[in-house]
Amino acid sequence: MSAQVEPRKPYDIDSLTDVALRVFAERGYDGASMDDVARAAGITKASIYHHVSGKEALLERGLGRALDALFAILDEPAAREGRAIERLRHIVERVAEVTLRLLPELTVLFRIHGASKSEREAVERRRSFDRYVTEIIVQAQREGDVRRDLDARLAARLIFGMSNSVVEWYRAGSLTREAIAHAVVSLAFEGMTPR
Amino acid sequence: MSAQVEPRKPYDIDSLTDVALRVFAERGYDGASMDDVARAAGITKASIYHHVSGKEALLERGLGRALDALFAILDEPAAREGRAIERLRHIVERVAEVTLRLLPELTVLFRIHGASKSEREAVERRRSFDRYVTEIIVQAQREGDVRRDLDARLAARLIFGMSNSVVEWYRAGSLTREAIAHAVVSLAFEGMTPR
Repeated sequence: MSAQVEPRKPYDIDSLTDVALRVFAERGYDGASMDDVARAAGITKASIYHHVSGKEALLERGLGRALDALFAILDEPAAREGRAIERLRHIVERVAEVTLRLLPELTVLFRIHGASKSEREAVERRRSFDRYVTEIIVQAQREGDVRRDLDARLAARLIFGMSNSVVEWYRAGSLTREAIAHAVVSLAFEGMTPR
Repeated sequence: MSAQVEPRKPYDIDSLTDVALRVFAERGYDGASMDDVARAAGITKASIYHHVSGKEALLERGLGRALDALFAILDEPAAREGRAIERLRHIVERVAEVTLRLLPELTVLFRIHGASKSEREAVERRRSFDRYVTEIIVQAQREGDVRRDLDARLAARLIFGMSNSVVEWYRAGSLTREAIAHAVVSLAFEGMTPR
């Protein structure tokens, strides 16, 4: 996630968004300037403005990627068919995988608090994702597959809190993304103690 | 956690730290200025400097409170005596309670990344707390009370990730701190599915 100087190459809006989101994830969106983005891209600020209207446009594209990837999970067959508990397992595992695959985008998404129009819309889409998953937990409770003594909304927040925390400590290294996603599911559904 | 204007009263260093940490939690430490702190306290910036050398000194006091409270948990009898699994349960529950009780301080602690000397020292103390807990998980695995297929360090990160996430969404309201701390323990140890 370090914002190293990239080798010069013709940028397009997508590759510029890649660079910008890495910079935002590292310095915080508010703390990052277009100068920082230009430096990380190894091009002038003027060349960036050739592709994009400004910092918020880059943020908007990054948040769009993050949220589109999260919502795409809900359209996967395993998220739509079968018992609620199995759909839930699939969603929790895929959310963890997507978080690790789009680490800069999700890092930025998890840290925004609705300071601008793009941020407010992203926060609203995130809430709607959480509500959808909360509904599946409620259904799994009705089907007897999730403990009824847990508040479904609280459970959703805690499980995604666990999964989202990877953006704070994950560095490419010893543990694979799959191993981490598997551990998230395993802890959330079975817990730490043996059965 | 909103930084409202407080009624005028004689401030001391502790009550100023209270106000400053609420401001830092709300605006981010980097985004918050001493003017913001003065405004939230309803006094002049000069009066603040009468008590404290600057913003970093307020941060240092706030981080000290957070870390002292976390380490104090490890000295509680229930964290020191008995089987590893029971000590672990106690620690996880108390960490969640302390996080909710000192919400601004812990919010700031969880968001810093080692930009200054105070921040680096706090990050180092936090890592040493995590290592201590990881060791207890390893011991509980040896005693057969925690599944051996879980990586102990990963489990510690995910469980505290879940617990720490309360700073992102908790607002005083419907759920009590005790109910939230109980749900954290329940999910971490027993998981969401019935036994």
